[in-house]
Amino acid sequence: MPIQKPRTLSGFLELSPRKQVLFDAMVETLREVYALYGFYDLDTPLLEASEVLLAKGGGETEKQIYRFQKGDSDLSLRFDLTVPLAKYVALRQNELAFPFRRCQIGKVYRGERAQRGRFREFYQADIDVIGDGKLDILNDAEMPAIIDAAFTRLGLTRFVIRVNNRKLLNGFYAMLGLTDKSGDIMRVVDKLEKIGREKVALTLTEDLGLSPAATEEILSFLSIQGSNGDVLAALEGYRGKNETFDLGLDELAAVCRHLAAFGVPEEHFQVDLTIARGLDYYTGTVYETRLLDYPEIGSPCSGGRYDNLAEYYTEKQLPGVGISIGLTRLFYVLDEQGLLNEDRLTAPAEVLILPMTGDQAPAVALATALRETGVRTQIYFEEKKFKQKMAYADKLGVPFAAILGEDEIAQGKVALKDMTTGEQTLLTAQEAAQAVHAALADVRRAAPIRERRPD
Amino acid sequence: MPIQKPRTLSGFLELSPRKQVLFDAMVETLREVYALYGFYDLDTPLLEASEVLLAKGGGETEKQIYRFQKGDSDLSLRFDLTVPLAKYVALRQNELAFPFRRCQIGKVYRGERAQRGRFREFYQADIDVIGDGKLDILNDAEMPAIIDAAFTRLGLTRFVIRVNNRKLLNGFYAMLGLTDKSGDIMRVVDKLEKIGREKVALTLTEDLGLSPAATEEILSFLSIQGSNGDVLAALEGYRGKNETFDLGLDELAAVCRHLAAFGVPEEHFQVDLTIARGLDYYTGTVYETRLLDYPEIGSPCSGGRYDNLAEYYTEKQLPGVGISIGLTRLFYVLDEQGLLNEDRLTAPAEVLILPMTGDQAPAVALATALRETGVRTQIYFEEKKFKQKMAYADKLGVPFAAILGEDEIAQGKVALKDMTTGEQTLLTAQEAAQAVHAALADVRRAAPIRERRPD
Repeated sequence: MPIQKPRTLSGFLELSPRKQVLFDAMVETLREVYALYGFYDLDTPLLEASEVLLAKGGGETEKQIYRFQKGDSDLSLRFDLTVPLAKYVALRQNELAFPFRRCQIGKVYRGERAQRGRFREFYQADIDVIGDGKLDILNDAEMPAIIDAAFTRLGLTRFVIRVNNRKLLNGFYAMLGLTDKSGDIMRVVDKLEKIGREKVALTLTEDLGLSPAATEEILSFLSIQGSNGDVLAALEGYRGKNETFDLGLDELAAVCRHLAAFGVPEEHFQVDLTIARGLDYYTGTVYETRLLDYPEIGSPCSGGRYDNLAEYYTEKQLPGVGISIGLTRLFYVLDEQGLLNEDRLTAPAEVLILPMTGDQAPAVALATALRETGVRTQIYFEEKKFKQKMAYADKLGVPFAAILGEDEIAQGKVALKDMTTGEQTLLTAQEAAQAVHAALADVRRAAPIRERRPD
Repeated sequence: MPIQKPRTLSGFLELSPRKQVLFDAMVETLREVYALYGFYDLDTPLLEASEVLLAKGGGETEKQIYRFQKGDSDLSLRFDLTVPLAKYVALRQNELAFPFRRCQIGKVYRGERAQRGRFREFYQADIDVIGDGKLDILNDAEMPAIIDAAFTRLGLTRFVIRVNNRKLLNGFYAMLGLTDKSGDIMRVVDKLEKIGREKVALTLTEDLGLSPAATEEILSFLSIQGSNGDVLAALEGYRGKNETFDLGLDELAAVCRHLAAFGVPEEHFQVDLTIARGLDYYTGTVYETRLLDYPEIGSPCSGGRYDNLAEYYTEKQLPGVGISIGLTRLFYVLDEQGLLNEDRLTAPAEVLILPMTGDQAPAVALATALRETGVRTQIYFEEKKFKQKMAYADKLGVPFAAILGEDEIAQGKVALKDMTTGEQTLLTAQEAAQAVHAALADVRRAAPIRERRPD
């Protein structure tokens, strides 16, 4: 038979079994946190009719879509979880209770140019709250509070959620008479961190034709910095000149006030006037996130408020606010930086039973007893020498081996070997279960990520 | 803006939020059971290079593949989880520890003709154990034991796992001098239940050209029935005539013996000589499953032993045994039959906090206290009348509403309303958490499926 060289597509992350355990631990942690806040966990198809998925049309994304014909159908793989959500809500608008809160953790597809750390298939972990006609600003404050809880549970501490408001920006540009150009200006300003202040100034005057005075005003506005209180106070200086600005400032102040009430520590969120999110989609609050020690990751978690989720599918006004974690890229970078928690158990089982006699019944009975208490247990069924059995246990990295020889069976006990210390203890099945639970309590609770503290 | 009518592709199951909760409960249950037996939980890409995925080529399946071109790449969506596993194991053959035990629960794609209850996107929930060169027969006995545990935990009791052995069948047909035709014969016999004994006899003689005597022998062999002990005893009558048969009989007897040792009740497994699985792929033990009250579902869970998992990708001999649950179809039929457990909580939260004053701080503090004990809690942030807030709580189906009015806040308490009984109690946050945990203990443990007992 001819051999086909096996390979995985470039841009598609396929993890080793151990790395997969750590990735799953991150997914599981996010699901747990999202669940605590009361969200429906949805699972929509990966394929949609192209005319539905691409109803909005145009834009950067369309070139990247995996789109194809199957029979008479023009199909596309989803490129985010927001458009499928819009479709879902439009389809079920009469049956859903609003505010409709949904989380979804799933794969999306973008045929980007392959490069290191960029993926064509990747997970997004989204939460959104959709209102019917109206949606309270408190939802805008709860989103980053959930992200703060999620990141903290993942094991991250050195991060900041940056918050801004598009109304504030739009109002500010309107004050300068630059409303037509505000979209273009925000796209330039968005690059402030990447290209620096001078290049931004140059682009604003030369490419967008702004006056030096306007450019100066913009740069001075963007340089408002300090504690959240300081920034909000400085922004009060602009109040009264533009209604949209004032509304945006009220919203931003409300979000900050409630973020504190939600228990988010001050060092985890920051008003940052430079962020706008490239998308025209957002209409109020916007979020970006930064890992302080790894700014090169970009924003592992972003989102914001939008006025109308499903305008392409329904006349119903559905304002919402949402946030999305780019999980695959985040995992990839954390792994590269050596920040995955090596203390977490990555073996497929907690106990590997090694039967040393031909009779498998005692092994099966022991496995059943351990599993009944919740211990993940594998039996090694193969006929091999003791040394090979132990080598297998080592290779899996199981924390315990349970050796069942004639002596142990005769005594109704098992020799439980701690694979880390090498210590071996003769125990009953119940004692063994207790010992395993006691030894692994911390390991099972360990966060998936372990930051290195800066010196 | 023109409105695009939203729709979901036909053959793609998109569940209501509540149904999704029940589906997820099934997935979660399977993951828990699989984990207790020690498997790596893998997650491979949904897209593969066509030349890799279709290396085996030909066959029924190929027409159904979602295959397309993107740039220079010829891509296909996976149609099962076994071929990606073969690729995975071949790629990592030098790094994996064998036996390599993996489970995977994921979506697969087949462009079948759309019909009720048939899906183009559906979940498979697979477990496989792959050996290096050899794999003990005990693994063949453990597979149905795991399925028995999984089905039981799901809430099913009236099912039977049917077991047979291809060597036994091949050996039997060799005794009759029908080795060349054994594949064809098995495909006909596989339909015994559907088309009946007479039609099978007719097809064997007329279409396959078997002699009436051979046909009679086959039908007489297939009619061996009774308890597993009876069937095995009857099969002993054929021993000594063909080595392959004898080997198959030894394997089948070993599987039955160990299944009992694994604690699988006798009524949950049955030697059935009529099953062969249509695929040439299987070489030893084969499994099918039947829900006794719903035979029309077909086999919701099937699998078997194969000699060589990855022969298209590597020269290494990788025998394995595996079993796969067709989860989407199973869920769909259970739902149609009204067998999903309505006792299970399908609300997105266990407690909905209804703030009755303008100050949200007490609501946030209560939510935090409840979440810290693991209660899934949502705060209703919208400014609405009390009646509308309660209507929302009703529509979500939350078991508890926590009402925070001025009086409650002044006393540092909350009015916890049991939405089923209507009873309302004034409690501290800690007392409320305890009350919720106590009230929901059973509901949280409820199996996802509830069978109706036959009268």
